[in-house]
Amino acid sequence: MLAVHGGAGAGHAASEVVARGLTAALDAGWALLAGGGGALDAAVAAVASMEDSGVFNAGRGAVPTTAGTIETDAAVMGVLPGGREVSGGGCAMTWPANPVLAARAVALAGDALLLAGEGADRFAEDSGLARRDPGSLVHRPAPGPTAVPGPAAVPGPSSVPGPSSSSAGTVGAVALDATGNLAAATSTGGRSGQAPGRVGDSPIIGSGTWADQGRVAISATGEGEAFVRAGFAHRVDFALDAGTPLPEAVRAAFGAVARWGGSGGAILLGADGELVVAFDAPAMARGWRAVAEHEAGLERLR
Amino acid sequence: MLAVHGGAGAGHAASEVVARGLTAALDAGWALLAGGGGALDAAVAAVASMEDSGVFNAGRGAVPTTAGTIETDAAVMGVLPGGREVSGGGCAMTWPANPVLAARAVALAGDALLLAGEGADRFAEDSGLARRDPGSLVHRPAPGPTAVPGPAAVPGPSSVPGPSSSSAGTVGAVALDATGNLAAATSTGGRSGQAPGRVGDSPIIGSGTWADQGRVAISATGEGEAFVRAGFAHRVDFALDAGTPLPEAVRAAFGAVARWGGSGGAILLGADGELVVAFDAPAMARGWRAVAEHEAGLERLR
Repeated sequence: MLAVHGGAGAGHAASEVVARGLTAALDAGWALLAGGGGALDAAVAAVASMEDSGVFNAGRGAVPTTAGTIETDAAVMGVLPGGREVSGGGCAMTWPANPVLAARAVALAGDALLLAGEGADRFAEDSGLARRDPGSLVHRPAPGPTAVPGPAAVPGPSSVPGPSSSSAGTVGAVALDATGNLAAATSTGGRSGQAPGRVGDSPIIGSGTWADQGRVAISATGEGEAFVRAGFAHRVDFALDAGTPLPEAVRAAFGAVARWGGSGGAILLGADGELVVAFDAPAMARGWRAVAEHEAGLERLR
Repeated sequence: MLAVHGGAGAGHAASEVVARGLTAALDAGWALLAGGGGALDAAVAAVASMEDSGVFNAGRGAVPTTAGTIETDAAVMGVLPGGREVSGGGCAMTWPANPVLAARAVALAGDALLLAGEGADRFAEDSGLARRDPGSLVHRPAPGPTAVPGPAAVPGPSSVPGPSSSSAGTVGAVALDATGNLAAATSTGGRSGQAPGRVGDSPIIGSGTWADQGRVAISATGEGEAFVRAGFAHRVDFALDAGTPLPEAVRAAFGAVARWGGSGGAILLGADGELVVAFDAPAMARGWRAVAEHEAGLERLR
């Protein structure tokens, strides 16, 4: 089972470009799962696909900071083929073309859980990862006849100003493979017009990204500061540990995010294959695919 | 009430220098509390004192990375005189002489929760904070006739190698002021011999630093990766929310840290003034001061 999201927030425009980006991500991850691949590889492949699309606020589509710099954050958590649980992330990175691959490299190295800034960049370079194309340093809508401004576009007159448009376009994936392993991956260019160096919940294990084997995989999006303060993913996990059903745990965790003044969305996948897609932001781009089911698209609620 | 710690780990050497550093930190914070100052200012002053001492792995005493760079992390959480709750942190910083002041500046700005690397440095500079003395770029034991290698010294033959010597010398403080406000502050130079860019639990709100008004203030130290994975401070807070007594909540949270392969210590201060000092590392430098009580020193257990 595989689910993806492409951000939640008021800045979203439902579009074919976004739907195509989600579908391509599902296809990329699903090809691995269907071939007997692991959940971690599938989640990473799905996120890398969305990073490459240029449609979302991640990887090639990352939006600039107030200083005009592109800074990306990402994290992954899952299990290696040998059974070792791994997790790791990078933040305020400028080097990698695919921040999620840098996060995976941090996780596989198994030393640090989070690398920041120049150290993260150098680690990505030393890991042999491809460098971000300098020509992609300014966010552009994806090319093509049906191109419309992506969810990460700078808020225009039709967008709600302020924090509710933050982090729109963050991408993420959760996966459950045939062996029962769970994985999660999240990648973001930060919120639109953020200060240089600003880090949200995406690269923080236990906030925006989490995979607790036998329990739940989580990728969140939204106003990162509130998700960190709420300890979003950990909060869900603790509630599950106490016997709370997943939907109720998610509802309570969004309540905590709201108490810290934030909103957003998340995809959550239980070890039994239960999928919860939840958001209290005006819109969320999302899609999922299970063994005999394929659905992708973007809906707008309220 | 005010409590401070100077790190937990096997690398600790009980020394008069450390005891003096803790005492000076308590004095600095206490002077503010006794003068009617707020918990946040007191916690920050106590941590800044330890940063300035050169004795701990924070501020002036921060240990270098494998690349020889000094990179510091810090976070604060508390309440401003007007009643506004604030929290913030910085990581992988090289500029500020007092990383805890940079964290406070992030918190007061109220925009980002965490700034990383170059962006954090520039923010500290723009905030008018003093620059780290380039002459302090290599960790030295504190001067003076009784100087002995501080807790942050590079592990020698008498130290246990491996992760149990990590993060020794991180400093932190928790405070409760006369109006009932809680605050926490933590500052670190990272673990000894860490990779450039590596970020532990100290600057992550909800992991190594936390102050939930009316409930608990927390500053932790130890193997940061395990504290982040365990969601240490959030875990304690969630348990308190469920009615678990503080000592039991702390014990359970250390159990979670241990399940993630880590150990360390923490100081926790309840809204009713209950202080819990807990560590499962071989040693922890700590001290505390209440209205009519003053105790500071370093003990070694087991």
